[in-house]
Amino acid sequence: MSATTSARTRLSPDQRRGQLLDLGVRLLAHRSLDELSIDLLAEEAGISRGLLYHYFGNKIAFHEAVVRHAADDLIAQTAPPPGGEPLDRLLASVAAYVDYVTANYEGYVSLVKGAAGGNETLRGIYDEVREVLAERIFTEDAQGEVIVDTPRNHLVVRGWVAMAEELVIAWCPSPGEVTREELLDIIAGALPALVETLPTRP
Amino acid sequence: MSATTSARTRLSPDQRRGQLLDLGVRLLAHRSLDELSIDLLAEEAGISRGLLYHYFGNKIAFHEAVVRHAADDLIAQTAPPPGGEPLDRLLASVAAYVDYVTANYEGYVSLVKGAAGGNETLRGIYDEVREVLAERIFTEDAQGEVIVDTPRNHLVVRGWVAMAEELVIAWCPSPGEVTREELLDIIAGALPALVETLPTRP
Repeated sequence: MSATTSARTRLSPDQRRGQLLDLGVRLLAHRSLDELSIDLLAEEAGISRGLLYHYFGNKIAFHEAVVRHAADDLIAQTAPPPGGEPLDRLLASVAAYVDYVTANYEGYVSLVKGAAGGNETLRGIYDEVREVLAERIFTEDAQGEVIVDTPRNHLVVRGWVAMAEELVIAWCPSPGEVTREELLDIIAGALPALVETLPTRP
Repeated sequence: MSATTSARTRLSPDQRRGQLLDLGVRLLAHRSLDELSIDLLAEEAGISRGLLYHYFGNKIAFHEAVVRHAADDLIAQTAPPPGGEPLDRLLASVAAYVDYVTANYEGYVSLVKGAAGGNETLRGIYDEVREVLAERIFTEDAQGEVIVDTPRNHLVVRGWVAMAEELVIAWCPSPGEVTREELLDIIAGALPALVETLPTRP
């Protein structure tokens, strides 16, 4: 008896749904959202299309559930470690982000560039993720050691998150001469650079 | 006889098409692309829908032509002034970019967030604009006074362009305590800050 079959008979519906979403996220790593069909998931999970429709309702709801699951994964995996110096914690979080996008490139780009345009719910999930990543900078650095909580700095952090995303998306398929460590330094180093060295008018 | 009527009878088809595209771009300033219909353009231009279909073929081709025209406008309007110090020219170009987005907010956001997802041609135009804005940094600063032409710096500039866009889009509808001058300083100051102060591993 395979692990899948065993799990199918013993898991609760919620657990089974979670397991299917995990599989959906894994399938999305090297596929765009458009390429992730209920047929494909059914085949990979070894269960019927009818059962998947029972769990997810329709294709749009299925995609939304998978993307929400992926977003939860991304937020959890990029949480900074609980202790240590603020800059080291920032670097660890940035490294986790870069590694997540690298490991889930097709699905991530598909979310950012594609699904964002056509579907308000996916757009909402994407905006939520950006908001969480940006706000976390302030909640995780409550003493303001890296960045002080001001309206101007909230704007700067929002721009920094957009920059980080663009850098990873551009770097990943063609890193060229830029190593992963250099990329991490650019992204993590950019935040204090932006905050500390920007001119302010007299 | 109004200026429009006069122009309609004397302009060549290409000139007339260009005039209609100018009008389309102006209409897009405070509307999303979805809200820009051939009916609306026909009404504003005072000509028949049939004639507009003659010029643009169909709604998708019409939207593409308007967006390409808007992209050309953006690139032309943000060209740095021909002389002066590199940092002053950068600031002038950034100011023109911020003012362009401010004046054409709805249409610009619609292009970035919406149309980008659904239509490969619009996506292509958008990517072209980003590419031109990023590459111009190097061609306009051929002596490398602000930024030296290296693969790492090309990546940094690409991230900087994404950051600039996010900052303007976030700031424009709710500037809060951040003034236009502060926004310009943040964006223009970020580029040398990113290039000069980023750590490099030994």
